Amino acid sequence: MTASIEFYFDFASPYGYLASERIERIAEQHGRSVIWRPFLVGAAMKVSERKPLAWVPLVGDYAAHDVKRFARYWDIPFVIPSHWPVATVNACRAFYLLEETDHVAARHFAQALYRAYFRDDRDISDRETVVAVASELGHDPTHIAEGIQTDRIKQTLRSVNDEALDRGVFGSPFIIVDSESFWGADRLQQVDQWLSRGGW
Amino acid sequence: MTASIEFYFDFASPYGYLASERIERIAEQHGRSVIWRPFLVGAAMKVSERKPLAWVPLVGDYAAHDVKRFARYWDIPFVIPSHWPVATVNACRAFYLLEETDHVAARHFAQALYRAYFRDDRDISDRETVVAVASELGHDPTHIAEGIQTDRIKQTLRSVNDEALDRGVFGSPFIIVDSESFWGADRLQQVDQWLSRGGW
Repeated sequence: MTASIEFYFDFASPYGYLASERIERIAEQHGRSVIWRPFLVGAAMKVSERKPLAWVPLVGDYAAHDVKRFARYWDIPFVIPSHWPVATVNACRAFYLLEETDHVAARHFAQALYRAYFRDDRDISDRETVVAVASELGHDPTHIAEGIQTDRIKQTLRSVNDEALDRGVFGSPFIIVDSESFWGADRLQQVDQWLSRGGW
Repeated sequence: MTASIEFYFDFASPYGYLASERIERIAEQHGRSVIWRPFLVGAAMKVSERKPLAWVPLVGDYAAHDVKRFARYWDIPFVIPSHWPVATVNACRAFYLLEETDHVAARHFAQALYRAYFRDDRDISDRETVVAVASELGHDPTHIAEGIQTDRIKQTLRSVNDEALDRGVFGSPFIIVDSESFWGADRLQQVDQWLSRGGW
């Protein structure tokens, strides 16, 4: 039996979105499954004294251009969101609520949230939007709206964030394959090769 | 006639070294030439308030692992230099001195300097080492040692650095193809595609 690929990402991360559109296909080709791990990258950014690329002088303009070009390169619909920065705590909590009972449904929800934000320019920081996206997938809106307020789900997300930091997950996307860490959508090709060759 | 590819890099940059081992082959495949532009990335790092990856908490350890893995991925000999950080001002000046008369010789010298640093672990901040590397390629050591001290060559390097900053070149490697900028060794595949398809 081969281990799953762990896919850490922040819902506000455009490169995380690009990776999210590719990672399942790569995993499938190698008979692997993917564990989706939305988290809040903010704590790691703080520890590593970094800020979002968009706020870095010189780099910000380049990054905006690069991510749009990268999306076209992979033929993935993409817009620079008008709502930015966004808090993704509600999005993450709703994911872990759904994951308690159905991890495939949770994954479809994560993909839908990412597309809501980076294709349809919806404000996923807004709790109503998060609930609406879940509802559009057939989930009970009341269950989501109430579930994400529970201490249990809040604690789940805190644990995921703590574990990410403990494991040295400092960016988004961040992919762990057989204890090997890869940071960035631009490392997916190496992830693919690593899976093919079992390392190099 | 097709324009040359501009290849900006800092001699202290390991990802610049990796790119330097691939870029000529990519350019040749598309009938392009490469203009090598060693520069001092420090000024741009200052403007963009960044520091070398190795000094960034959490990221530093990952980056050291990533660059070694990346080198193996491309089958390029690589060691983490024991002399680091290094000032690369003498290396750059010697490059531009040679380039005044022979840009192919200057390119071979740049490749030799990069290999001296990232394969053979020599201290390329040292003026004697820079002169020795040139001498090993058949250049007159006295010409190099004296030439890099001239105001003319110092001014050449200052102009290159100023121009890089003016053009938004903020990292290493940084590749400009037909006014399109690509940052990072991990963008070489996109550079290759851009040259194939004339953009996308």
